[in-house]
Amino acid sequence: MKVDTTDISSIMNEKLLRLEDSYDQIDQVVREVMEQVKTFGNQALINYTEQFDGISLPSINVRAEEIEAAVQLLDPAFVAILEQAKSNIFDYHLHQKEKSWYVNKSDGIILGQQITPLHRVGVYVPGGKAAYPSTLLMNVIPALVAGVSEIVVVSPPGKDGKVNPAVLAAASLVGVKEIYAIGGAQAIAALTYGTETIRPVDKIVGPGNIYVARAKKYAFGKVAIDMIAGPSEICIIADESQNPLFIAADLLSQAEHDEMAAAVLITDSSTVAEQVKLEIEKQLSNLERAAIARKAIDTYGNIFIVESIDAAFALANEMAPEHLEVMVEDAFLQLPKIKNAGAIFLGKFSPEPLGDYFAGPNHTLPTSGTAKFSSPLGTYDFMKKSSVIYYSENELKKVKDQIIDFANQEGLGAHANSLSVRFAEGGNK
Amino acid sequence: MKVDTTDISSIMNEKLLRLEDSYDQIDQVVREVMEQVKTFGNQALINYTEQFDGISLPSINVRAEEIEAAVQLLDPAFVAILEQAKSNIFDYHLHQKEKSWYVNKSDGIILGQQITPLHRVGVYVPGGKAAYPSTLLMNVIPALVAGVSEIVVVSPPGKDGKVNPAVLAAASLVGVKEIYAIGGAQAIAALTYGTETIRPVDKIVGPGNIYVARAKKYAFGKVAIDMIAGPSEICIIADESQNPLFIAADLLSQAEHDEMAAAVLITDSSTVAEQVKLEIEKQLSNLERAAIARKAIDTYGNIFIVESIDAAFALANEMAPEHLEVMVEDAFLQLPKIKNAGAIFLGKFSPEPLGDYFAGPNHTLPTSGTAKFSSPLGTYDFMKKSSVIYYSENELKKVKDQIIDFANQEGLGAHANSLSVRFAEGGNK
Repeated sequence: MKVDTTDISSIMNEKLLRLEDSYDQIDQVVREVMEQVKTFGNQALINYTEQFDGISLPSINVRAEEIEAAVQLLDPAFVAILEQAKSNIFDYHLHQKEKSWYVNKSDGIILGQQITPLHRVGVYVPGGKAAYPSTLLMNVIPALVAGVSEIVVVSPPGKDGKVNPAVLAAASLVGVKEIYAIGGAQAIAALTYGTETIRPVDKIVGPGNIYVARAKKYAFGKVAIDMIAGPSEICIIADESQNPLFIAADLLSQAEHDEMAAAVLITDSSTVAEQVKLEIEKQLSNLERAAIARKAIDTYGNIFIVESIDAAFALANEMAPEHLEVMVEDAFLQLPKIKNAGAIFLGKFSPEPLGDYFAGPNHTLPTSGTAKFSSPLGTYDFMKKSSVIYYSENELKKVKDQIIDFANQEGLGAHANSLSVRFAEGGNK
Repeated sequence: MKVDTTDISSIMNEKLLRLEDSYDQIDQVVREVMEQVKTFGNQALINYTEQFDGISLPSINVRAEEIEAAVQLLDPAFVAILEQAKSNIFDYHLHQKEKSWYVNKSDGIILGQQITPLHRVGVYVPGGKAAYPSTLLMNVIPALVAGVSEIVVVSPPGKDGKVNPAVLAAASLVGVKEIYAIGGAQAIAALTYGTETIRPVDKIVGPGNIYVARAKKYAFGKVAIDMIAGPSEICIIADESQNPLFIAADLLSQAEHDEMAAAVLITDSSTVAEQVKLEIEKQLSNLERAAIARKAIDTYGNIFIVESIDAAFALANEMAPEHLEVMVEDAFLQLPKIKNAGAIFLGKFSPEPLGDYFAGPNHTLPTSGTAKFSSPLGTYDFMKKSSVIYYSENELKKVKDQIIDFANQEGLGAHANSLSVRFAEGGNK
């Protein structure tokens, strides 16, 4: 863990900008996969699964009995934890449900916004070592809360040709019945264009490798997508009142995700900085995933010592981290200073892993500085809005000349005509 | 105008799917422009403006005096209309402003969502014949309402090297001070990567030609974008109580936008269908933009006769039109039947052009069926969310074992450690 005494944000930005700019070769593969699946449907899916995953699938459908049986394969204690997590996630996301509204601007004018759920949504759940039941819960539950009627899950098969049973169990707990054992760009293609078996969806959500990410970008426009997520990040702002053990443990909890994960501490205390640095070394050696965490800490780990806690917030806003832990006295009073962050954890007993699994807010969060312009995945991502306009004859009459003038000013005579025809002699039957 | 007695939605979808699937050549140009501007900054902007627009610009900056003076160049009556439109647009978009919220789940748990505005936004306003002051108002006002601090406008220069004065006047009315006379993919590149003069933005909104649209897609991820808009569409659902003159005028008001615009009537009355067909011919000949409207009507104009008004709504939901006029008895009672539409116009005195300019709701709307998963541009597009999580020591203690189990189940030991370190002997100072 490097300790840096400069607060020049450009240095940090460079370190955090871990996204390559060029994806030429990947994009070429993605494009071919998308086109092949579009043209050849299921057969292309089966071919690619053989080619990329090395698995010869008899069928891409996961049978209903297999989904239902998956819960039985898990430790009942773990099922109880999943149930509690599910309940907490539901609770939180209910608060994000949007409502239609109407206002009466006068006796003859009603304006409003009608909210409707998306109809059909596809959720990508990674396979292999990264097969997390929490991914399924965090992506499916907001869609359920929004009122999406059809939720379809795709997840690449393991070596046994089957989708991870913990993922199936989570699917079963939230009532998902349509699951396909496919992954990679070919799964995104199937959700985008449809095949003989899989009907296309309106939106695709869920994390995946770089092929999945680029396929989602390719599909964007034809369908909606959630976001293009990069490696995980944590930024901790801590003052001298904080425990270096906690800080080090929380930094490592993100570092273990991925060799490209970023773990950053910003503090106004050089004592805290030095102690965290030592504590990181101590804790690192005991971790199962020490090799990954070590690589991440060495490459993208940083401790910044700044002059004041206000300077720390300014730097954090520049970074726009996925996870921001605010470990300072009176953490709540700092909220107005936070402009850009995916999720904010307040105080010393709100560690980031609490949010990953359990507390309720979504763990799909904007990374790589995109918290400057994007939000956590939420119920709102599965709802859409329609403007509603009503004018009475009388109210339209009052403003028709202004609208006609405006239309003529913009050179659109048929627009003007749409107004004038309504008030022409004999026009109004 | 063709009258079709089938309601097979696939036919309609094919007609409405006016987006090409392949943009290879355009994307190659866009990519080069993006990279050149990224590398060479202002010089690339000036070169491309010469190459594409045929204009040798002394400077890309539009001076403050020029912006302020623009209002004086307009007819005061038109300025008054712009002011009224501005006021209506502000009013409507205020209702879309989102609020932070917090809930106390127990004495020691607070969960919430903090809402913050985006910091810096770029608005693309097309030039030439399509230079509309309404575009400026509709894109800038929601950002202002959201609380965006920096709004920058780009618009391609006309033959005289200047940005359209009506656009500048509209900018002046809403207080925009940072304007650059650049257009095309190069303008999108400048907003995305920044140049010596132009600082990069967080989000780019506004319509443009196909180069602008593809450049926005290219930039997506690095910055946020609004949507990739296609040609305009109107769908009118009308029963036999409606006036064919109004229906024809409204269909033509969209058809005049663009040769690729779609104008569709769905009715359960063959009388209305026949009369609208005749009326279209009658009105077409009197339009200034008759050639464009004629082409659109011939290619993408359609009248569908269906068995019932319910069938009409089913078909319209499949189409997911940008604009939906509901011209039937008791139009309000039909709202629950509408699942997919950008903007809904209720009753016979709420024609689409009312929404284009004046009523207040945004005219930037999802096209080409994307209303199935997207919303009108709104205040919410310029705000973002951060989850907020607080647990007290006591509350975290209650759930720590569950979180540790969950983390271990997912194979993430450092996540588990972040919990256990907080409750280990001597760990909690």
